Amino acid sequence: MLRMDEGMPFLLKYENVAWYEEGRVRILDRRVFPEVSYVECTDYREVRQAVADMVTQSTGPYAAVAMGMVLAAKESENISAGERKAFLLRAADELAHARPTTSNRYALITGKCAEAGISALMSGCDPVEAVFERAVETMNERYSRMQLVGDELLKLIPEGGTILTQCYGETIIGTLIRAAKRVGKAFRVICAETRPYMQGARLTSACFAEMGFDTTVATDNMIAYAMQHEGVDLFTSAADCITLDGHVANKVGTLQIAILAKYFGLPYYVTGAPDAGKRGADDIVIEMRDPGQVLSYRGIRTTVDGVKAIYPAFDVTPPHLISGVVTDKGVYVPYLLDGYFDSEHGRDSFLV
Amino acid sequence: MLRMDEGMPFLLKYENVAWYEEGRVRILDRRVFPEVSYVECTDYREVRQAVADMVTQSTGPYAAVAMGMVLAAKESENISAGERKAFLLRAADELAHARPTTSNRYALITGKCAEAGISALMSGCDPVEAVFERAVETMNERYSRMQLVGDELLKLIPEGGTILTQCYGETIIGTLIRAAKRVGKAFRVICAETRPYMQGARLTSACFAEMGFDTTVATDNMIAYAMQHEGVDLFTSAADCITLDGHVANKVGTLQIAILAKYFGLPYYVTGAPDAGKRGADDIVIEMRDPGQVLSYRGIRTTVDGVKAIYPAFDVTPPHLISGVVTDKGVYVPYLLDGYFDSEHGRDSFLV
Repeated sequence: MLRMDEGMPFLLKYENVAWYEEGRVRILDRRVFPEVSYVECTDYREVRQAVADMVTQSTGPYAAVAMGMVLAAKESENISAGERKAFLLRAADELAHARPTTSNRYALITGKCAEAGISALMSGCDPVEAVFERAVETMNERYSRMQLVGDELLKLIPEGGTILTQCYGETIIGTLIRAAKRVGKAFRVICAETRPYMQGARLTSACFAEMGFDTTVATDNMIAYAMQHEGVDLFTSAADCITLDGHVANKVGTLQIAILAKYFGLPYYVTGAPDAGKRGADDIVIEMRDPGQVLSYRGIRTTVDGVKAIYPAFDVTPPHLISGVVTDKGVYVPYLLDGYFDSEHGRDSFLV
Repeated sequence: MLRMDEGMPFLLKYENVAWYEEGRVRILDRRVFPEVSYVECTDYREVRQAVADMVTQSTGPYAAVAMGMVLAAKESENISAGERKAFLLRAADELAHARPTTSNRYALITGKCAEAGISALMSGCDPVEAVFERAVETMNERYSRMQLVGDELLKLIPEGGTILTQCYGETIIGTLIRAAKRVGKAFRVICAETRPYMQGARLTSACFAEMGFDTTVATDNMIAYAMQHEGVDLFTSAADCITLDGHVANKVGTLQIAILAKYFGLPYYVTGAPDAGKRGADDIVIEMRDPGQVLSYRGIRTTVDGVKAIYPAFDVTPPHLISGVVTDKGVYVPYLLDGYFDSEHGRDSFLV
């Protein structure tokens, strides 16, 4: 089976994201990376819980829910074909709703996997094998289309320039790195730390540093300073949702970096493709997570009793703060995303 | 001896900031609070090192260097009067330069303490006692003048309103709380967490929560979200330097919150008074701290090997982002700070 993760850093190798083998799904626990440990799930509901708990994030859940569907196919091997079909559809629905903001994307993947399993059932093939192949295919498809995005983004980065990233957009990181390596282009990366989960410090910086890029972490309150003093050429982030009218939901903090980029006159490029079902900001559901996660770090309390916290997982950046949406079909003005759909990709075209 | 810290939260009580007793200075280790532990210094150079290591910060070092001078007086009790005078002056100079951005302020305090010690020496009194009294006096003076600032700031907060704070400005926090308690005014406080040291989460929130205020922590990347969704009425911070032309050096992150406040149309009030010796931004020395402190939290590594970091302790906010400088003599337009000096306070008038 062709795999699109060759030559990629540790964090992006399929087996280290989420992988089905012999009745279990093993997910790298990115909450504690650079410590390396895995969460093992023995039924699909554990996979759903792992995604809800952010054992993996960014597009990690896209892989996890796909592999969760393989597990669902395995779990149901001793029930009747009719019940098994219902079981797969229920698993697809439950896995899709592990987290609210991106459930449309999860649903597309789990739907495709359920379809592969049911189709195998009907034709007397092994649903486990069929769903596994479909799961890997969804990962390959994502990499393959996102490679075009990575190629486009690379063109926007000046040779020897400096980019600022927010959070962890793993597929674009992988494909950008691959594009840069292919043509031998060097650039510097400044990673916003991205509290409370520190994806920028723990994950994004690890990928770029492992692949030989000059990589620097700045805490989330050093962004304006970095824009003033560290020669940032552009800000770029992935997106958990891109609405048709150019609003972008991404890890909380993206909005304020976009405001700062505007203030300092730097372009902000979002990568990905519009979510066909999301017309505008009102269609975005912001996931509110347990505020307790803000009040401690890896079990160390940072506050006294009685202090509250907020923990919105995402924020929404309006199109007037976005310079361009870098898609697999080129760079779009955020107000003109309708043009993206005037082609072969149809109406379910975000990059899963 | 009259003390101005009565009725204050734990963190603001003089003994918990920095205190001399029987040949040692005991400093609350605010790096680990809410864990309560103290660093004990047995000579003034250890006090200098503790300040450099940020065992205490905000105005904690103002108390620590003053108490360090008491220790210097004690350490030198067995040498001749002439040598002892030189010892005190050297200690005053060394303590003043524990950190660069605020060395002018430290120098004012240690200078006053050295003067008290030398004057006691000349008149046959006990220099240790004299320096101790002068040290406590500097703390009282600061509280006393900052109470006027606290009173002014309170007037700017709407009843039942919400303020956003950055880092930990302990004297203004104490005097604002006292002013609010006196008149029974309630407001809500949102504390920016303030990485990497988390002063907002660990220290500011503790003071307000202990005194009964509705207190919420937001990570540094949630500020724009909080301004959009949490009903913030104004942003306020203390300052480590206020130049005569209205630039403010304060904990890194202040600049970007000021930019966000401007974007969302919220006022930003700086508290304190101008630093007479600092004409403009070029007179501000930004302390660059060990980047290693950004790459871990309480000993837990957040990145892989090979990743770099930046750690500017402060940033500089220009006057066009500042709505007003709240001083002990009223609120000034940041461009018109010269007016502050048209009165009895002379030319060394920042609030130490």
